[in-house]
Amino acid sequence: MISEKDFHFLIEKERKIIDAKLKKVLAKRKPRSLYEPSDYILADQGKRLRPLLVLFSAKAAGGTHKQAYNAALAVEMLHNFTLVHDDIMDNADKRRNKQTIHVKYDVNTAILVGDSLLAVAYEYLLKDLIVPGNNVLIAFTKGLVEVCEGQSLDKEFELKKTVSINEYLKMITKKTAALMEMCCSIGAQIGGGTPAEIKALSRFGKFLGIAFQIQDDLLDLTGEEDAFGKKIGGDLIEGKKTFLFLKALEKAKGKERSALEKIIMQKGIPLSEIYEYKKLYQRLGVFEEAQKAILTYTRKALRQIIYLKNEEDRKHLTYLAYSLIKRTT
Amino acid sequence: MISEKDFHFLIEKERKIIDAKLKKVLAKRKPRSLYEPSDYILADQGKRLRPLLVLFSAKAAGGTHKQAYNAALAVEMLHNFTLVHDDIMDNADKRRNKQTIHVKYDVNTAILVGDSLLAVAYEYLLKDLIVPGNNVLIAFTKGLVEVCEGQSLDKEFELKKTVSINEYLKMITKKTAALMEMCCSIGAQIGGGTPAEIKALSRFGKFLGIAFQIQDDLLDLTGEEDAFGKKIGGDLIEGKKTFLFLKALEKAKGKERSALEKIIMQKGIPLSEIYEYKKLYQRLGVFEEAQKAILTYTRKALRQIIYLKNEEDRKHLTYLAYSLIKRTT
Repeated sequence: MISEKDFHFLIEKERKIIDAKLKKVLAKRKPRSLYEPSDYILADQGKRLRPLLVLFSAKAAGGTHKQAYNAALAVEMLHNFTLVHDDIMDNADKRRNKQTIHVKYDVNTAILVGDSLLAVAYEYLLKDLIVPGNNVLIAFTKGLVEVCEGQSLDKEFELKKTVSINEYLKMITKKTAALMEMCCSIGAQIGGGTPAEIKALSRFGKFLGIAFQIQDDLLDLTGEEDAFGKKIGGDLIEGKKTFLFLKALEKAKGKERSALEKIIMQKGIPLSEIYEYKKLYQRLGVFEEAQKAILTYTRKALRQIIYLKNEEDRKHLTYLAYSLIKRTT
Repeated sequence: MISEKDFHFLIEKERKIIDAKLKKVLAKRKPRSLYEPSDYILADQGKRLRPLLVLFSAKAAGGTHKQAYNAALAVEMLHNFTLVHDDIMDNADKRRNKQTIHVKYDVNTAILVGDSLLAVAYEYLLKDLIVPGNNVLIAFTKGLVEVCEGQSLDKEFELKKTVSINEYLKMITKKTAALMEMCCSIGAQIGGGTPAEIKALSRFGKFLGIAFQIQDDLLDLTGEEDAFGKKIGGDLIEGKKTFLFLKALEKAKGKERSALEKIIMQKGIPLSEIYEYKKLYQRLGVFEEAQKAILTYTRKALRQIIYLKNEEDRKHLTYLAYSLIKRTT
């Protein structure tokens, strides 16, 4: 017969295993601005009740604990996702004797930490489910993880003085292009595509996504307010490091450069200065640079699909790509 | 050859199909306090670029649009999840010429709307992936959807004057018990359990979850601050409609009832009044009521697992259940 002491020992042993595994989950992931706060909450040695339920249920159903560890980590991450978001909603400033995430960091960080914990939970849950159709789920989840990481990088940029065009491209690849890549990937998989077709369409989506985001940055200043549906110049007001801004900074000298650096220092500009900055961008040829980049990435996207078998399908995707370039919203 | 006009027509046709399908996704779901604002953002007839990419990629890979509609809806929901959360983080007050969710409603609603859109996205993605191992994902996603709905109900309660014990039980079943039910369900599935074993363990988790939440409500006033790791009486300060509060309201008369109604009217109490209310709860026998309910649900949980084959496994689960009752944190 098992005694209460034996059981206590067993629980403690499993808890330690779960704690150790959870410690590794986010340790090496980037960006740290996202995963360091996520780690802070996951490292909180709570009761681990939910993962224990997974493990003991697996055992009670005739299996082993070992089979169920990834699922156990997944439910603990899902649980922590709910804690982080609930603590924002409940105005809670302490949890397990430690500051809650939105207090220690801020609400934005806490929202994103919750989102990414949920995303990584799915990632872990999927690790042991190697079944057909699963790649669709893996691709979907990868898209979700990347979109969280991209948003985190974008927020990081707001605090950084200098961001290179390369860093910017890396950020939008995660924030915008990864999701469009995923759309094409899962569509192609569901449609029964060959590995080459899936790869070609995925890359099409990715490059289109990069073009799309640069276009989005461009529309912030060149779109018509009513059609665009957002405030014109919103990125400038917020002081966002968009393609336009980074290109302008790359090209400007002297006084013009100082004017741009003012945006960084003051974290944005007042509404009244938008027209002035739009003219500066015009003088620097920044809009043409953006248009050139959009065309380059769109063509790069289209080159991926030239080997698709059906001409009509190629035409559809081509029209879709060009309709994005021509859009005003 | 397809002309630009034909393509435009095709795109518009597909967009309308997507719009119509999206309209149905959340129309009948409850609670409305969650899904009505989610509908508000989904009904925004955007470009539907991402679902179009899914559909055209499916076609280009040799499949049909029809095969890919659920995945297309899933990516549009995932996209809208990112928009809602990003708009909070970016302080954006307009999107597609309409107020953003956190402006039209509030930040809490927007957080939860984003979360549930992501949850329902997985639900739709899984619809067409009927493969082994899939029930684990379906159960996981169902747990996620329910936890969002439960949190929304909990927030709804804050605005409601009267909540019955039954409504409360329904809320915690979603908010807390659904996740513990899911833990046991996926554990049992991963462990290779029979349908009867999976059902028994799921129900075990569910009833244990109800007991666990009532215990949580109880610990808000009877736990030791250091061990509990949260502020004692936090639920009273926030004016939350917990098991203790609702039981007290059920039992109180005259002056004592007025004192409790004051908590509802004033949406909480100051820190200095906690001790007074704790004594009121004691006089009303509310703590005993909670303990009785905890024991009842724990026993209900344990009755589910009496037919599990292995005695040691039953013991483990029983110890685990009782260790929860005895916890002080």
